[in-house]
Amino acid sequence: MRTDLEMAAAEPGAAAESAYDALVARNDRIHRLAHLGAIAGWDQAALMPPAGNEARAAALAELAGLLHRMATEPALGLEIERAGREPLDAVQRANLREMRHAWLRETALPASLVERQRLAASRCEHAWRSQRPANDWAGFLENFRPLLALAREEAERLADRTGLARYDALMDRYEPGMTSAEVDRVFGELRQWLPGLIREVVARQAARDADDPPVDPVGPFAIDRQRALCEQLMGRLGFDFEAGRLDVSTHPFCGGVPEDVRLTTRFSADDFLGALMGTVHETGHARYEQNLPRAWLGQPIGQARSMAIHESQSLAFEMQLGGHPGFAALLAPLLSEAFGAQPAFEPERLHRRLTRVQRGLIRVDADEVTYPAHVILRYEIERALIEGEVQAEDIPALWDAKMQELLGLDTRGNYRDGPLQDVHWPEGLFGYFPCYTLGAMYAAQWFAAIRRTLPDLDARIARGDLAPVFDWLCEHVWSQGSRWTTEELTRRASGEPLNPAHLRAHLQQRYLG
Amino acid sequence: MRTDLEMAAAEPGAAAESAYDALVARNDRIHRLAHLGAIAGWDQAALMPPAGNEARAAALAELAGLLHRMATEPALGLEIERAGREPLDAVQRANLREMRHAWLRETALPASLVERQRLAASRCEHAWRSQRPANDWAGFLENFRPLLALAREEAERLADRTGLARYDALMDRYEPGMTSAEVDRVFGELRQWLPGLIREVVARQAARDADDPPVDPVGPFAIDRQRALCEQLMGRLGFDFEAGRLDVSTHPFCGGVPEDVRLTTRFSADDFLGALMGTVHETGHARYEQNLPRAWLGQPIGQARSMAIHESQSLAFEMQLGGHPGFAALLAPLLSEAFGAQPAFEPERLHRRLTRVQRGLIRVDADEVTYPAHVILRYEIERALIEGEVQAEDIPALWDAKMQELLGLDTRGNYRDGPLQDVHWPEGLFGYFPCYTLGAMYAAQWFAAIRRTLPDLDARIARGDLAPVFDWLCEHVWSQGSRWTTEELTRRASGEPLNPAHLRAHLQQRYLG
Repeated sequence: MRTDLEMAAAEPGAAAESAYDALVARNDRIHRLAHLGAIAGWDQAALMPPAGNEARAAALAELAGLLHRMATEPALGLEIERAGREPLDAVQRANLREMRHAWLRETALPASLVERQRLAASRCEHAWRSQRPANDWAGFLENFRPLLALAREEAERLADRTGLARYDALMDRYEPGMTSAEVDRVFGELRQWLPGLIREVVARQAARDADDPPVDPVGPFAIDRQRALCEQLMGRLGFDFEAGRLDVSTHPFCGGVPEDVRLTTRFSADDFLGALMGTVHETGHARYEQNLPRAWLGQPIGQARSMAIHESQSLAFEMQLGGHPGFAALLAPLLSEAFGAQPAFEPERLHRRLTRVQRGLIRVDADEVTYPAHVILRYEIERALIEGEVQAEDIPALWDAKMQELLGLDTRGNYRDGPLQDVHWPEGLFGYFPCYTLGAMYAAQWFAAIRRTLPDLDARIARGDLAPVFDWLCEHVWSQGSRWTTEELTRRASGEPLNPAHLRAHLQQRYLG
Repeated sequence: MRTDLEMAAAEPGAAAESAYDALVARNDRIHRLAHLGAIAGWDQAALMPPAGNEARAAALAELAGLLHRMATEPALGLEIERAGREPLDAVQRANLREMRHAWLRETALPASLVERQRLAASRCEHAWRSQRPANDWAGFLENFRPLLALAREEAERLADRTGLARYDALMDRYEPGMTSAEVDRVFGELRQWLPGLIREVVARQAARDADDPPVDPVGPFAIDRQRALCEQLMGRLGFDFEAGRLDVSTHPFCGGVPEDVRLTTRFSADDFLGALMGTVHETGHARYEQNLPRAWLGQPIGQARSMAIHESQSLAFEMQLGGHPGFAALLAPLLSEAFGAQPAFEPERLHRRLTRVQRGLIRVDADEVTYPAHVILRYEIERALIEGEVQAEDIPALWDAKMQELLGLDTRGNYRDGPLQDVHWPEGLFGYFPCYTLGAMYAAQWFAAIRRTLPDLDARIARGDLAPVFDWLCEHVWSQGSRWTTEELTRRASGEPLNPAHLRAHLQQRYLG
C-alpha cells in the first residue's frame, strides 16, 4: 500500500489538494533542483577546468538563492500551520516535523547576513589556502575575526528563534536535537579515560614493535591499479556502481545525489592506504545515501538523519570494519593481486598496520584511538568562541594547552599543523566537529547491538562475510531516513540512548584485549 | 567604453531601472540556471551511471519548467513592449529583437507540455541506447509514438503563434528565419546534381583505386593513444583546455557552457579516424562557443547565431580543413608518433583516405559528398511526420525507398543502421537535420569568401598555417554571436545570401578537379 506521501512523491504534477500535499510538492521541486546543484558541485570539485570556475560559482549561487527563496516563501509558514491541523498519518507527521524544523531555521536569517557570511567565508578560505603553508596566523586572524563575528550573529539569531544556546543553535544544523550539555556529558566521560588509554596502547604497541618490527608496504603503487583496487573493494563493500561512480578530487568527499552517488578520492604513488581507506570511509557514506528510503526521496524524511549518524556509517566502514582482522584477511589477496606479493601484505602484518596508534598533529591522519582527542580540543575551543567566552586571538594558546594535555604534544608556533590545519573554521563552519566523535560512538554502539543479536558476528567477518553488518545497518539506519529523531532512531536501533561506554569497550577490546 | 548591456551583464545585482535593464537581469539569471542544466545534461550523456537516469530526467524537467516559467512570466511581454519604447543603442535593439523572438515562441507552449516532452524524450533516448544495438524497432516505437505526438502538438501551437507552417515552426527553433520553402529551394538544386556527382566521384575513385590500390591503416590503435592524439589535435586547432574537456559518450557532441565546453567522442581500437575526425568536427563547434562575445554572455545576442551556422563551423573544421591536403600533411607526423610509422600515414595516402567517397548506411560516417543525401532523406521524412502526412510506423518503408533512390542501398530490416541510427528522433529533435547540409553550404561559402580576400589561402594551409581561417571565422562569425540575423550575418561575412553554388563548386573542385 502506498501512503499519500508516496503518491505525491511519485507524481510530481499531481494536484495539491491539502496544505500537506502542497508542502510535499514544494519539497519535491526543491529536491529536483538541488539535484542539479549537487551534480554541478561535484563536477566543480572533480572535473571542471579552471577557467570555468567563475561561471560555475555564479550558477551555484543563483541556485542557492533560488532554493532559499523557495524554502522561505511567506506562504510556507501558514501552510505548515494548516497542515498541522490536517488528519495526517504517523509518517506524514514525521515529515511535517522535519519541514517545521527546517523552516524555523531557514527563516531566522536575513538574506543580507547569509550573503555577508558567504563573502567573508570565501575570502577567509581563499587566503587560508596560502596562509596555511606559510604558517601565517596573524594574516589568518584578519579574515577570521569578521567571519567569527558573523557566525556569532548567526548563532544569536538562531538562538533567539529556537530557544537553544548559541553554540547549540549552530550545531543543530548538522546534528538536530544534540545539545552541548549532552556533548559535555559524553565528551566529559571520554576525557576521563582517553589520555590514559592512548598512553597504554602506545606503550603496548611500542613494546611489540621492539620485539617484532613492523613491515611497511614498499611502493611505488601504480595509480591505475590503485583505482581498480578501490573500485574492487567498493564492490565488496556493496557500493552500487549502477547508481554511482568513483572519481578524483583534491579533497575526498561523498557527493552527488542518493540515486547517483559520486565518491572521490586522491591517489599518491607512494602510499596506497590513504586512497584505499579514504575510499572505504566514503563508501560508508555512500551506502547510507544509496539505501535511503526510495519512496520518501525528495521529502525531508527521505534524507540522512544527521551528520553524526552519517559519520557513524563512514566510521563503521573505515574503523569498525577496517580495523577488524577479517578486513585485513579480505584485503590481503586483493593487494597481492594488484601490486604483487609483499611481506607487508600478509594479513596479520596488514592488520597491525591498519590498527597502528600514533600521537600526531593532524586530525585527518589520526587513528581511531587518538582521533577523539583532536575533536574534543576543537569542540571546546569553538564552543567558547561562539559563546563569546574566548576570542580569536586566544586560539593558539588554548590549542597548545589542550594538545599538551590530551596528546602530550608540543605545538607552540606551529599554526600550520595546529589551528590552521582544518578547512572548517576558514569556511565558517562551527558546530560540525563534534559529529566526528559522536559518529564514532554511534558506530561502536551499532556494532555492540549487532553482536548482541549475532554472537558469531566476528567469526563471520573473519570469514569475509560482511552481509550481516550491511543488513543490520540498512534495516536500522539507512532505510529509516529521517523518519525518527536521532534519539528515537538510536533507541530503536540499539535499545538505549547514545552511550559512550561502547566506544570505550570497543577500543579496549581491540587495542588492549 | 562599456555599453549599458555590458554593465548590466557584469553586475547581476545592479538595480534594474529601465524595462530593458530588467530584461537583461532576467536573462542573466536564466543563463546562470541554464548553466547547471547544461552541465547535468552533459554528465547524463558522458558519465552518469544508468540507475541515476530517472532522477536526472526529473531534475532536468523541473529546471526546463522553471526556465520556461521565467521566460514566460506575464510581466515579460509588457516589459519587452516598454523596452521597445526606450532609447536603446543598436546592440541593445538587436538583443531586444532576440528576446522578442524567443518570448513569442516560449509563450506559445504551456509548461506542462514542455515538461511532458522532456520526460518522454529522456525515456525514449535512454531506452534507445539499448534498443539500437538490439535492432528493436518495435520497442522503440512504443516510446517514440508519444514523443512524436507531443512534437506535433508543439508544432501546431508554435505554428498558430507564428503563422509559420508546422514543420517550419519547429525548424525555426534551430534555424531562425529559415523556411521549408527555402530548404526546398536549396535542397531541390542539390537533388538535381548530387546523385550524378556521387556516381561520377565513386567511379573516378574506383578507377584510381584499381590502378593504385589504397593503403589502409593497420590497427589495433590503443585507446589511450587515440585519446592523447585527439587532445593534441584539438590543441593544434585552438581548443582552450583551460575552459573545456574531452570525454566519451555514445553519441559525440559538444556540450557544457561557453566558459566550460564539454566535447565528447567515442573510441574504437580498430579505427582511429572515426574518433579523430569526430573530435575535429566537435572542435569546430567548441571554438565557436569558446569565442562567443564575452561581454554579451548571458544575453540572447551572446549566443551562437543558429544551428546551421554552428554546423558551418564544425564542417569548416572537419570537411573544409579535414579534406584539405594541408591537413593530411599536418596530421601525418602526429599519427606516426602516436602509433608508429605506417605506409598509410604517408600524407598523400592519408589525404586519399580522408577524401574517400563511399555510399554507406551511417550518416555520421558519411563523407562530405554523400552526406547531403542522408540529410535530404531525413528532412523529407521528418517534415512529413510533423505535417501529419505519414505516421511513425511508415518510417522504415520510407527510409528504405529513399536510401534506394538517393544512394542505391538496400536497408530493409536493418533498423540499427537505418532509422535507429541517430539520437535526434529519440530525443524528440525535429527540424534539426536540414542544418547539417545548410551548414555544409555555409562552410563552403565562408571558404570561398576567405579565398577572395586571401588568394594564397591554400598555400598557407598546405604549410600547416591555419590561423587565417580561425581569424576570419572569429571575426566574421564567432565574435558576432547573435548580433545579426542569419541572413545579415551571411551577407556581412560573405557579401551574398546563402548560395548553394559554393558547395557544388567546392565538391567539384576537390573531387573532380
